[in-house]
Amino acid sequence: MVAGGGKLPVDVRVIVEGEEEVGGEGIASFVRTHGDKLKADVALVSDTEMFAPELPTLCVGLRGMIYTEIEARGARTDLHSGMYGGAAPNPFVALSQVIAKLKDEDGKILIPGFYDNVEKPTDAELKAWKALPFDEEHYRESEVGSVSLTGEQGLSVLERTWARPTLDVHGMPGGFIGAGAKTVIPAKAVAKVSMRLVPDMAPAESFAKYKAYVESLTPKGIVLEVRLIHSGDPIVVSTDNEYVKAATEAMRAVFGKETVFVRGGGSIPIVGDFVRELKTPTVMMGFGLPDDNLHAPNEKFLLANFHRGIESIVRFLSAVGG
Amino acid sequence: MVAGGGKLPVDVRVIVEGEEEVGGEGIASFVRTHGDKLKADVALVSDTEMFAPELPTLCVGLRGMIYTEIEARGARTDLHSGMYGGAAPNPFVALSQVIAKLKDEDGKILIPGFYDNVEKPTDAELKAWKALPFDEEHYRESEVGSVSLTGEQGLSVLERTWARPTLDVHGMPGGFIGAGAKTVIPAKAVAKVSMRLVPDMAPAESFAKYKAYVESLTPKGIVLEVRLIHSGDPIVVSTDNEYVKAATEAMRAVFGKETVFVRGGGSIPIVGDFVRELKTPTVMMGFGLPDDNLHAPNEKFLLANFHRGIESIVRFLSAVGG
Repeated sequence: MVAGGGKLPVDVRVIVEGEEEVGGEGIASFVRTHGDKLKADVALVSDTEMFAPELPTLCVGLRGMIYTEIEARGARTDLHSGMYGGAAPNPFVALSQVIAKLKDEDGKILIPGFYDNVEKPTDAELKAWKALPFDEEHYRESEVGSVSLTGEQGLSVLERTWARPTLDVHGMPGGFIGAGAKTVIPAKAVAKVSMRLVPDMAPAESFAKYKAYVESLTPKGIVLEVRLIHSGDPIVVSTDNEYVKAATEAMRAVFGKETVFVRGGGSIPIVGDFVRELKTPTVMMGFGLPDDNLHAPNEKFLLANFHRGIESIVRFLSAVGG
Repeated sequence: MVAGGGKLPVDVRVIVEGEEEVGGEGIASFVRTHGDKLKADVALVSDTEMFAPELPTLCVGLRGMIYTEIEARGARTDLHSGMYGGAAPNPFVALSQVIAKLKDEDGKILIPGFYDNVEKPTDAELKAWKALPFDEEHYRESEVGSVSLTGEQGLSVLERTWARPTLDVHGMPGGFIGAGAKTVIPAKAVAKVSMRLVPDMAPAESFAKYKAYVESLTPKGIVLEVRLIHSGDPIVVSTDNEYVKAATEAMRAVFGKETVFVRGGGSIPIVGDFVRELKTPTVMMGFGLPDDNLHAPNEKFLLANFHRGIESIVRFLSAVGG
């Protein structure tokens, strides 16, 4: 805009977050303590993706999360499984027994009261999601690549990944992980367990329910410690404001198609901070694609979308300033 | 003996095994193919421990084992748990569901038919074990150090660790095991699972039952592969032969106490190879102690037992040659 010889139609402040994947505590604290420097009519966040290539998409909801560790301690030191197998508690077996009781085989979370504050998406939203170009078999085959999909029965993939809480285990450090065999009964083992939250679940309350339930499952001979590593609130953005409308128009003009509203299954904690701390409405206009391999090997970003993104933001700023 | 100015009263062949902890395939193959070079009246193996300090002990039985890996594969690549949580299968959750069904909460193994060939120790053996100086609470507190012991109800610790099969998980490689949080749904995860076997269980048959059962538990969306890493036969040695008697006498003379007969919970696969391939009776005369921290940090060996061990073996060889 400026480089093209024009002028910025609005004042722009840029805030860069480089820590989000490790909890983003720095930016959250900055937002809490420097609200005066961040006063704005609207926040524009580009950390979401388009529902399909060429399909302009605004994200209007995100799942929150709680990321936890369960540490299971058994014997005082590592022991030989020949000598002590049959008498010493095994932390990995204990963690497996606990994890197996956190979700049923269809993915329903078994923590008492966990779903109490889950809001069902509106009928209009569910109807709009049904109209999106989504082929479950193609998604299974080309995006996930597993023999079948998992998750709660009777709910669509979009509802399961956008509007339902989930629970995943990311790794289980401890013991012997090299090639071959070592017959150790490790003194301790850890499970990294996270839960995605949806409106109107509160991270602190969800963690308290989870912790109490996990502790109630403590297997014989084992001491469990349940730790919260970080958390983020779920949010849903109203689509009924001038900034969302300006963004909708901007993307429609660049891509030549109606902009669709989706939710994201992931978490962008800063969006919750903007809403809660600064009362600043946020527009999530992102240009990622479903096959970008986020957080995985061979992650990419389509160059064409980099240029379309620039053009969309130029149009958005012009409309907001106009 | 020779260093002391005497002569060896029998011919001695020494065979050194340096690979046992990684499966010991080299020595097993050597024993199978070089039986002619290994002809002997008796084999003396020093890889066991004394039941208590100062208490001369011969080991007359060992558990066998099968060491396995279960690999669970879900999605084709690692996926982001925000975007795919609720639809993509989680290999760690899957392995936990499988492991939780391998043993009940009292340590009873749930693999169908797994106990079919388990021989109960003789009444004489059980009675002798009861007479051993064993304080379960001291064992829990000073050897294991856990809040309580685990294992099958109604059986003593010695019976559970010497004469019953067990199942342990040693590590679960895969996913994210660093400090902090990474929200990955890993494409695959592995559980290192071993089972200790007792007479008259056969490793191949036990593995087949285990593999079939694990495969029958395959969770939705997951492909399981069950691999055998290595195995060893359980054995029980008859106490009614001249070599065991010579060893009993030798240790009694050195320690000044009656020698006790115990079993070991661990595996020394070469003993099974000597018995099966060479038909050579084996005496297991070892000088380790219960607090040696086998396979664990700060492993040690008492120097006094090193010297008593030398003297016991001198007396044993003299008696055998006499």
